[in-house]
Amino acid sequence: MTVLPEPVSNLIQAFERLPGIGPKTASRLAFFLLRAPEELSQNLANALLTLKSGTGMCPVCFNITIAHQEICDICANTHRDQSSLCIVEEPLDVLMIEQTGGFNGRYHVLHGVLSPIEGIGPEDLKMAPLIERVKKENIREIIVATNPSMEGDATALYIRQQVIHYGVRVTRLARGLPVGGDLEYADQNTILRALAGRQEIS
Amino acid sequence: MTVLPEPVSNLIQAFERLPGIGPKTASRLAFFLLRAPEELSQNLANALLTLKSGTGMCPVCFNITIAHQEICDICANTHRDQSSLCIVEEPLDVLMIEQTGGFNGRYHVLHGVLSPIEGIGPEDLKMAPLIERVKKENIREIIVATNPSMEGDATALYIRQQVIHYGVRVTRLARGLPVGGDLEYADQNTILRALAGRQEIS
Repeated sequence: MTVLPEPVSNLIQAFERLPGIGPKTASRLAFFLLRAPEELSQNLANALLTLKSGTGMCPVCFNITIAHQEICDICANTHRDQSSLCIVEEPLDVLMIEQTGGFNGRYHVLHGVLSPIEGIGPEDLKMAPLIERVKKENIREIIVATNPSMEGDATALYIRQQVIHYGVRVTRLARGLPVGGDLEYADQNTILRALAGRQEIS
Repeated sequence: MTVLPEPVSNLIQAFERLPGIGPKTASRLAFFLLRAPEELSQNLANALLTLKSGTGMCPVCFNITIAHQEICDICANTHRDQSSLCIVEEPLDVLMIEQTGGFNGRYHVLHGVLSPIEGIGPEDLKMAPLIERVKKENIREIIVATNPSMEGDATALYIRQQVIHYGVRVTRLARGLPVGGDLEYADQNTILRALAGRQEIS
């Protein structure tokens, strides 16, 4: 790689450390920015530099907030259903669910899932604050929206065990065929789940 | 998108301006960097900020060089074949060819291709300096390595017309089936080219 000037190879290496960006994409991005107006690189650099300093974590739901904000906009919103709590793995999941407009309660971000293989236990997640919330807040339903994976299922089960004696309804997002999907390409597990969760046509 | 703190949405927007990065990937990258050590964002930001100031253009071949360097390492290397010139569209193409180790001559970067539709003529490319090089340097072969597209072909033809009366051999990279490719998935034009360019088994 002696043909590459150091500033270019540095940028390629920095891009390669991002998920889903391999050497080819990293090179393409770097050479694109070389051609593009300098403003583009500068905007991205500035956004990167203010990312951590400009953000914080909501002390109630552990979602990402603007730095120095007391609690996040969702937790502060009294128009939202205070009795319903949606549990997600990551802050990005909050965004994904909010964009659907299908949920009007509040969230709790675990910042991970239980994973014995990776040595991640409840103490590594925001699990204790969740139990505290269930004790103190008047929560009626917990929707566990962890990913439909082994770890997501185990985490859902653990949460159910921890909160069930507080008289809270614990639900899990439905599993089945994705909308627009094709039965032909679905895996056996998904089809089994879709069968088990079949619904009356109304 | 009211749920997203401004520093996060700014970063998502900056990522979205890069080629091949859509809203989903941009979000994923931003949320990955939120979780990752701050050093990762800072490295990327620094690399972006020094990209333009740290690089320049070789006055001979117009490849990317380190800033304030007289001519690039390839042009300065007297061990390389001075009689063979490879013409490419972009600096990234130099890297791609260098990585193969299959070419030991020098390069000339056009910084684009002729494209009447987009209004790009020879004067918008590093075409005049190329003709100058052919006049002054003792070049015997020009390998036109523009992309195998309509514009790439037109550019190759134009270069041939311009330099042919200097007694220079002008060649074009072979077209055919990509190595590891499958005849079943090849398009008709590629198969036609592969037929026309068939080689004796030796």
